[in-house]
Amino acid sequence: MINIGLLGCGTVGSGVVKLLASNRAVISMRSGQEITIKRVLETAPHKVLDLGLGEEVLCTDINELLADEDIHIVVELIGGIEPARTYILEAMKRGKHVVTANKDLIAVCGQELFSTAETHGVDFYFEAAVGGGIPVIHPLKQYLGGNHIKEVIGIVNGTTNYILTKMSREGMEFNQVLREAQELGYAEADPTSDVEGYDAARKIAILASIAFNSRVTLDDVYVEGITRLSPLDIEYGGELGYVVKLLAIAQEIKGRIQARVHPAFIPKHHPLAAVNGVYNAVFINGDAVGELMFYGRGAGQMPTASAVVGDIMEIARNIHRGTVGSVSCTCFYSKDIMPIDELQSKFYIRLLVKDRPGVLAAIAGVFGNHQVSIATVLQKTSGEEYARLVLVTHYVPESDLRDALTVLEGMSIVSEISNVIRLEGETR
Amino acid sequence: MINIGLLGCGTVGSGVVKLLASNRAVISMRSGQEITIKRVLETAPHKVLDLGLGEEVLCTDINELLADEDIHIVVELIGGIEPARTYILEAMKRGKHVVTANKDLIAVCGQELFSTAETHGVDFYFEAAVGGGIPVIHPLKQYLGGNHIKEVIGIVNGTTNYILTKMSREGMEFNQVLREAQELGYAEADPTSDVEGYDAARKIAILASIAFNSRVTLDDVYVEGITRLSPLDIEYGGELGYVVKLLAIAQEIKGRIQARVHPAFIPKHHPLAAVNGVYNAVFINGDAVGELMFYGRGAGQMPTASAVVGDIMEIARNIHRGTVGSVSCTCFYSKDIMPIDELQSKFYIRLLVKDRPGVLAAIAGVFGNHQVSIATVLQKTSGEEYARLVLVTHYVPESDLRDALTVLEGMSIVSEISNVIRLEGETR
Repeated sequence: MINIGLLGCGTVGSGVVKLLASNRAVISMRSGQEITIKRVLETAPHKVLDLGLGEEVLCTDINELLADEDIHIVVELIGGIEPARTYILEAMKRGKHVVTANKDLIAVCGQELFSTAETHGVDFYFEAAVGGGIPVIHPLKQYLGGNHIKEVIGIVNGTTNYILTKMSREGMEFNQVLREAQELGYAEADPTSDVEGYDAARKIAILASIAFNSRVTLDDVYVEGITRLSPLDIEYGGELGYVVKLLAIAQEIKGRIQARVHPAFIPKHHPLAAVNGVYNAVFINGDAVGELMFYGRGAGQMPTASAVVGDIMEIARNIHRGTVGSVSCTCFYSKDIMPIDELQSKFYIRLLVKDRPGVLAAIAGVFGNHQVSIATVLQKTSGEEYARLVLVTHYVPESDLRDALTVLEGMSIVSEISNVIRLEGETR
Repeated sequence: MINIGLLGCGTVGSGVVKLLASNRAVISMRSGQEITIKRVLETAPHKVLDLGLGEEVLCTDINELLADEDIHIVVELIGGIEPARTYILEAMKRGKHVVTANKDLIAVCGQELFSTAETHGVDFYFEAAVGGGIPVIHPLKQYLGGNHIKEVIGIVNGTTNYILTKMSREGMEFNQVLREAQELGYAEADPTSDVEGYDAARKIAILASIAFNSRVTLDDVYVEGITRLSPLDIEYGGELGYVVKLLAIAQEIKGRIQARVHPAFIPKHHPLAAVNGVYNAVFINGDAVGELMFYGRGAGQMPTASAVVGDIMEIARNIHRGTVGSVSCTCFYSKDIMPIDELQSKFYIRLLVKDRPGVLAAIAGVFGNHQVSIATVLQKTSGEEYARLVLVTHYVPESDLRDALTVLEGMSIVSEISNVIRLEGETR
């Protein structure tokens, strides 16, 4: 019999309680153990009692729960840094295994959590922290271990993917779709963490740390959100054969790690291009396995509960065999972070320019002076005086492009640099 | 130090040797062990020596390899039933862990292999047997364990997916594409096992056994190949919004298991519809996690080697911790197989009929008499005398459809029942 101490009985927590109850038979069969919720730390008692759990399970004092020697696994679903961090560290020190879905915490304090788990010989699993129900942490950490991972590209935020899918399909403006998503509960009242890319940044920090065996934290990730995207960009990108996605990308380039989150155009035939709505996917390129993609529901009560319960079952099997800590921290190296300036990318650039002869030549001249080679130009008239100009570059260093844009900004013929979007997912 | 005894140094075997050598540093770091090829059973010595292995590794007598007490893991990459089966059983009896990519063997003798592994307390892993480099066995067996799996739908044969993709894109005939695939090495000289669906059937038997915790063998799987598919079917299906794929499907329906392999039309927006060329994918529907898909290279030297090395590393970690047999046979139940006759499907039916008034009414009448309800009809003229008729049914029991087709076959106005293809992947 494995006893769980559950911290937090919100959406995911109650999903875990429900799943352990509804699938009790297969879960105990497959894990070789009965798994029971012994204690739930929750300030709102009705959340616990409404799930059919008894009063004796209710607990409002963390110390009481941690002092219970019958509890084998602490499942932390409070979220945020504190008090989650302190609770987890304390649980580990008392020899309890820990399962969490807390990406914020791992992306910031991963090292401390892992080393504490190792010191105290307990398991620390967090499959639900990235990609919700999609198994991606374990496969990357264990079954792809024979590969040098070259890159990981994720669509790991359901809110922004829902917004971009809707903008793409219906030509709607960002703000309009965001409001709709908030009404449907797909976006939070304060959507900053999602739409500005911070949620995706935490997840790619976690994936990068595992893929490249070197700790990557939130601060190491370059982040751009989707708020500047316009239906015009989506339309012009479409004409060029691309769809737009908020990508979380981690690459190892000559021994350094590059990690970033930004909107990007990817070719329509790329496997990630078909990942729509609230679905998530993680695309992995390994030197032996080639291109892989894991696709599924990246959030939601029951998909996330599926991942949490999967981790609980794995620990239950470990306890059954009298062994724990199978795969602990795998950050064996300390690799440098490559700044975004040094990255080579292709760019889509949308400009609003004076519609008069010689303008294209002048603009092309500025790019040429900065070694920015142009692959494609689309010219669109916009009213009488102005033209919209869309340019796609060949691969150029980010810094060269920035320099060229700075010069363009100062030119009287350039009314506006409307948007700059990177192109990804093409074979170089 | 973990020592490997490798049986067979063909394509995959030499891939494993190469991968263990090229990625030695990360592999030993991640698995906590040095992994060494100690012996290779191979009748063609140059295959072994060409890889840079020394003469002392060469071995032509299985007993010599099995008697070597320093060998911890036997990696069986000979393929086929015998002598692979005997070698594996003998290795297990001597306390050696086994990794294999041998789907033929597992689909037929799975139970014997698992129970022998269990009796002798050794690990038996076979991630490479299904989906090549794609991690699917372990995730299904372990991390999705909290779910009742409702269905597994795989595109698990690269040869047929290459052929169907090419037929779809270029309107080519089956035989022509097959010849081309043979020249490119994507299809074998004797392509029967691939194009008739037996390879996919073995794989879905394995996946079904794991998903539903009940042993499913090759004989339990209903199988139809792709040889009867015509570019006409692909064209008409396309008009109706479908693409054709060879699907391997396993479902649990009211406590019984239904497993089958056949060509099927799936909606163009289904995630499996974008799986093209030699890529494979496994689509899983679980009650908690919802829809998941694993996508990647289902065959080939290095992708398959990636999966084999992943299994070796997992066993190395188990040995390191002094524990084995984490997840053994999971066929706890003995569920009945549901015959294909009882399955409810939608069908696409292509007929060649006399082009004269009243023919459609007569044909529709036959379907009506057998409770086969028609959803869509496309009529295409074909020469002067004949018309092609394409009908799509609503959900009907397979047996009712068969009865209606038998009556149609006997009618003088029906010149030919050109093809019958199931529709899959739609929400009911």
